[in-house]
Amino acid sequence: MTVDRILPTDEAYDLLALTTELADRELAPRVAEFETRGEFPREVLRTLGRAGLLGLPYPEEYGGAAQPYEVYLQVLEILASRWLAVAEAVSVHTLSVYPVATYGSEQLRERLPEMIGGELLGAYCLSEPQGGSDAAALATRARRDGDEFVVSGTKAWITHATIADFYNVFCRTGSSGASGISCLLADRGTPGILPQTPERTMGLRSSPVAQIAFDDARIPADRLIGTEGVGFTIAMTALDSGRLGIAACAVGLAQAALDYAVSYAREREQFGRSIIDFQGLGFLLADMATQVSAARALTLTAARLRDAGRPYSIEAAKAKLFASDMAMRVTTDAVQVLGGAGYVADHPVERFMREAKVLQIVEGTNQIQRMVISRSLAR
Amino acid sequence: MTVDRILPTDEAYDLLALTTELADRELAPRVAEFETRGEFPREVLRTLGRAGLLGLPYPEEYGGAAQPYEVYLQVLEILASRWLAVAEAVSVHTLSVYPVATYGSEQLRERLPEMIGGELLGAYCLSEPQGGSDAAALATRARRDGDEFVVSGTKAWITHATIADFYNVFCRTGSSGASGISCLLADRGTPGILPQTPERTMGLRSSPVAQIAFDDARIPADRLIGTEGVGFTIAMTALDSGRLGIAACAVGLAQAALDYAVSYAREREQFGRSIIDFQGLGFLLADMATQVSAARALTLTAARLRDAGRPYSIEAAKAKLFASDMAMRVTTDAVQVLGGAGYVADHPVERFMREAKVLQIVEGTNQIQRMVISRSLAR
Amino acid sequence: MTVDRILPTDEAYDLLALTTELADRELAPRVAEFETRGEFPREVLRTLGRAGLLGLPYPEEYGGAAQPYEVYLQVLEILASRWLAVAEAVSVHTLSVYPVATYGSEQLRERLPEMIGGELLGAYCLSEPQGGSDAAALATRARRDGDEFVVSGTKAWITHATIADFYNVFCRTGSSGASGISCLLADRGTPGILPQTPERTMGLRSSPVAQIAFDDARIPADRLIGTEGVGFTIAMTALDSGRLGIAACAVGLAQAALDYAVSYAREREQFGRSIIDFQGLGFLLADMATQVSAARALTLTAARLRDAGRPYSIEAAKAKLFASDMAMRVTTDAVQVLGGAGYVADHPVERFMREAKVLQIVEGTNQIQRMVISRSLAR
Amino acid sequence: MTVDRILPTDEAYDLLALTTELADRELAPRVAEFETRGEFPREVLRTLGRAGLLGLPYPEEYGGAAQPYEVYLQVLEILASRWLAVAEAVSVHTLSVYPVATYGSEQLRERLPEMIGGELLGAYCLSEPQGGSDAAALATRARRDGDEFVVSGTKAWITHATIADFYNVFCRTGSSGASGISCLLADRGTPGILPQTPERTMGLRSSPVAQIAFDDARIPADRLIGTEGVGFTIAMTALDSGRLGIAACAVGLAQAALDYAVSYAREREQFGRSIIDFQGLGFLLADMATQVSAARALTLTAARLRDAGRPYSIEAAKAKLFASDMAMRVTTDAVQVLGGAGYVADHPVERFMREAKVLQIVEGTNQIQRMVISRSLAR
Repeated sequence: MTVDRILPTDEAYDLLALTTELADRELAPRVAEFETRGEFPREVLRTLGRAGLLGLPYPEEYGGAAQPYEVYLQVLEILASRWLAVAEAVSVHTLSVYPVATYGSEQLRERLPEMIGGELLGAYCLSEPQGGSDAAALATRARRDGDEFVVSGTKAWITHATIADFYNVFCRTGSSGASGISCLLADRGTPGILPQTPERTMGLRSSPVAQIAFDDARIPADRLIGTEGVGFTIAMTALDSGRLGIAACAVGLAQAALDYAVSYAREREQFGRSIIDFQGLGFLLADMATQVSAARALTLTAARLRDAGRPYSIEAAKAKLFASDMAMRVTTDAVQVLGGAGYVADHPVERFMREAKVLQIVEGTNQIQRMVISRSLAR
Repeated sequence: MTVDRILPTDEAYDLLALTTELADRELAPRVAEFETRGEFPREVLRTLGRAGLLGLPYPEEYGGAAQPYEVYLQVLEILASRWLAVAEAVSVHTLSVYPVATYGSEQLRERLPEMIGGELLGAYCLSEPQGGSDAAALATRARRDGDEFVVSGTKAWITHATIADFYNVFCRTGSSGASGISCLLADRGTPGILPQTPERTMGLRSSPVAQIAFDDARIPADRLIGTEGVGFTIAMTALDSGRLGIAACAVGLAQAALDYAVSYAREREQFGRSIIDFQGLGFLLADMATQVSAARALTLTAARLRDAGRPYSIEAAKAKLFASDMAMRVTTDAVQVLGGAGYVADHPVERFMREAKVLQIVEGTNQIQRMVISRSLAR
Repeated sequence: MTVDRILPTDEAYDLLALTTELADRELAPRVAEFETRGEFPREVLRTLGRAGLLGLPYPEEYGGAAQPYEVYLQVLEILASRWLAVAEAVSVHTLSVYPVATYGSEQLRERLPEMIGGELLGAYCLSEPQGGSDAAALATRARRDGDEFVVSGTKAWITHATIADFYNVFCRTGSSGASGISCLLADRGTPGILPQTPERTMGLRSSPVAQIAFDDARIPADRLIGTEGVGFTIAMTALDSGRLGIAACAVGLAQAALDYAVSYAREREQFGRSIIDFQGLGFLLADMATQVSAARALTLTAARLRDAGRPYSIEAAKAKLFASDMAMRVTTDAVQVLGGAGYVADHPVERFMREAKVLQIVEGTNQIQRMVISRSLAR
Repeated sequence: MTVDRILPTDEAYDLLALTTELADRELAPRVAEFETRGEFPREVLRTLGRAGLLGLPYPEEYGGAAQPYEVYLQVLEILASRWLAVAEAVSVHTLSVYPVATYGSEQLRERLPEMIGGELLGAYCLSEPQGGSDAAALATRARRDGDEFVVSGTKAWITHATIADFYNVFCRTGSSGASGISCLLADRGTPGILPQTPERTMGLRSSPVAQIAFDDARIPADRLIGTEGVGFTIAMTALDSGRLGIAACAVGLAQAALDYAVSYAREREQFGRSIIDFQGLGFLLADMATQVSAARALTLTAARLRDAGRPYSIEAAKAKLFASDMAMRVTTDAVQVLGGAGYVADHPVERFMREAKVLQIVEGTNQIQRMVISRSLAR
């Protein structure tokens, strides 16, 4: 289905048309095979980079497109409707660029064009095995040794762990608590940075997620992003943006599931009629369509707050919560619309359903989102 | 709670501030008493009319404010958060002005300033006892007799039935089906127009809803709005706008319930802590807040489509469906947050819950909305 | 609809037939009027007492019927399907008999025949204004003065507060915490026991609920039920049984709502067919019917554990939680099936919906049930 | 967790203890590997057959155990809690025995001991590619040719298609409609019976599901089960029983997911406490536990109706609908409780979630169940 969008500029309409065209040409024909093989489409990401889609929110001086989040998120949504892992890669990569773009020294910012251009793929190393949701408790340590930091510890659930060219490493340079956390920029291949075997995930199999062991990895001190102790602030701010990215991915994925289910239900006949003409299925599809529209509206409304410089953290948490719960429900129902056909790999809906689940978990589980929202109400 | 809104103009910010001030001063102190007594606050409506709130979407030449629906709906939302029956009165009245404002002859439009100014209160006579949801089947007949129409039949579920100054009467002037329906403008007190005893409703008790019997009521032929046979088109178009109005009312009511529940949960202590600090309640409130935000975003997104001249009928149906289901859920949960206190009239939440139910029913039940949406998917 | 029940004895079939007959004759014709007037049907309770329905689970030597809870709950369910307030009165009264029947001295037990026969109506005074859910914190004090207890404090949310003939008064005779709580049996009219004005409740209006102030009320020491300090144990044990009673009431209420909605949907035509033949409504009714059956099965399964002498506290909490949430949902949907007709007092479904809400709150809110269940899982 | 069960006989307690012991020893250690490899555990089925678990509801004279469905279903539930595909195999096999056991000639019944003993594994060939839910429209034809039936057509979604030793083949021997359908018993290896490549399913990968092409397959006329034209009756009756089997499988699967999530939540610490002690997760687990209990109670209540010779078809449809929807929800939430860990194959919950989906689809999709239930309400 065509979604009727009101965009802020003509440029944005062009950008979305370009994205749709790229997605149809580069993503849609490859997704099934790469997901089955579990292979990351590195070349596709380069193509997106060359098309200017890997740094949309960043300033033009660094190769970005200076697009508002409202527009960037709709690009993500369209990518996600064709290949969730690629959209997530764009979201994670865009997030990985954020610390340097926003807090980095002049010297570090020199790398931005390569990052934004897609030559260098990023990873974001925040979570740890023992502290999934409790960032302030992170245990990875970086002790200063001359003009290097020596990092040891383990990071977990790192998207692009095995393929990234650079890492944002959140680690403890100071005392316990949030104020002791710093962020370092590390390169692939640094001795002592040891990506582990990727996890065997239920979905998003083309996207490698793994632990990374840091075994006295030495990172030059000038790779410190911002100053010591601002790591937690960087992480939390990036997380707010990241949540919007996940919300947009959820909307795109659910739209794809809805579209597929609608097409199937129009064509499939039972009892002599298209099954979409039975209210039992028609109403289910109507509820799915309504949920997708609500999630999109909520996500873009939060994005407009961000674009307007207003506080948007709580609305981003709501968008992430609502959109990912919605995607789980809508993709599960899409399988139901196809019946037995939905349960087999001949159709993409079973994959959509496996993929949706991860969105309720990443960038803070939906329980963490509810904590964030309820605390804001309690204040 | 303060809702952070991005509005299209400075004027709109002023308008919402004025509305909030009026609502706090004129509505909030009266609602409990009028609802208990079941008395319609006619004078309050006049006050709103004088403040310019009864014809917001209409052209300035008729006394309107030429506001986009996006802004008008947020006015409705704020009114609904203080007194649902008043917001519904504004919505119904605004809808009642629509046929004349859009399809009326020059002569009929002369009445617009009085309508929009609040001197004349409108009613919208479409539903019938036997055909709640099947408008094209309506049975009220108007036969031409010289330069009059003679109307007979029964209208049902008419808001303002007993107090309106004018009625839009949808009736059959031609053959069966949608193309035989016309719309007449009738005055209060016309012989043969007989409002019946108001229904004993679960909520919205200050707003009289009743059947109106038409017993050979004679209406001058120049009171025909538009031409013969356009009645169904008028009704359906107005319904699309009316659905947005109900959606906005639902958002306002739910926001009021959420705010009340949050305040209570902050102050009420159990087991030695504010109950909002228990995740069991905190997460419930977080889900409520998320639902309210999603409904608002969806409603205003549909409004912006209308304002941009895009098709918006399906998105309006989604907004009405989602927002009213949401309001039912959120108000029911608000009672739960207060526990026993929520079940008694000392607090407004039990009233909110009784009021929410009507929103799932009016302007097309939510089953009708699902029909509308599913048919658009089937095409 | 007839519910197909498998009962343990022929006697039980007879008892349910008798109950149905009584409910149809004595309850159904009176409920609408008494609820509108807010008048308690004292005489109806006497009739039920004479029929033997007020002490079903108690030994025959005291005038009870020695029925298993499995059977008693189905009696309650049938009563609730005709008049919730009466079923709740039976449940509360049966609960009020429990302390004396189970822990009372020989002397106190002499009163059981009058209680069970319905001459004396009971109330259960546990909750307090400040500690709805935190029973162990109760603040009503009873100090010993010679052979009397002198009681002061305030009880809240007391069903039958203004009409009961006897009260179970839970009060603190000892130190803080659960072990300082005792239970006294007090008579109506005792000086210093001051029932307050009944609450203005959303539903169950024929059943007076009020605070009771205890202002140095003197209760003879031989009215102590059991020994000092066992009050909390009595309260918690009775609560487990009370939860089963509420669950059964919820099932009966929801069954009544379902039956009414089904009848209406069979007869009401739209678009030329009975509306039940549209899957949009038919599937909604199917879901409602499924939920009612599940709640009944869960409730009776918990009852059979109780009857078999197994631990049943957690299953009772689940039954109360599930059945009352179900009743809220099913009654709300029943109103929806009737559309506008459902919103007015000409049909009982709006009353059902108002009544259902209280079931999510009493005998421990559903949040408390979830606490009980989750703690059992955490052990 | 131990489920406290009230069983009808001592023998039943022994049977469930045996089942638990077998499930722990034979199923639990193998499930992960077989599911990963997609290999059917034929030997495990033989073990179950030798233990007497493959013909529980059938008469002892054929090697069955003459157990009531109430008991048989709890055996299935326990098996499903360790390995869903094995429980489904038992359910499908038991169903495949049903036509011969109930309608078969003396001669056909001679095969029952081998079927029930597990030497011969059965398949049930009803569904077709074009008529998933519309059984009466089935298109596979069997024309009589001397003392053979010649069968041609395609069956779809056949569990055990590639490994079964015998097939119940539902085919059209007469005119269109239900009364033209018959059931034949066919052997593995019959020329013209051509199982196709198994489907690539989202879950239950150890259980091969495939189409079977019938290409003029010749089946002796004495393999007709019952008489010509009773095939539809056989199919529908078996389906009622089969729905109870799926419901029991759903309960077992959900119980396994709940138990795993509870264990994890007790051990996993965040913010310094076991995460089960946070109400946010504790309440989620409480709701899951409540849903599992409700589904089990509903399923066994329907089974007791069957065992008592009462009509149970509608209650079986409710049980299948409720239990499978419940399992989908509970397994999805179980993944959520584990967070990222839940999304990877190191823990079984992601498999549980993939498996649950099929239960909403097989033996009549849940939309078909709602049709069945709503039609019974409309009568």
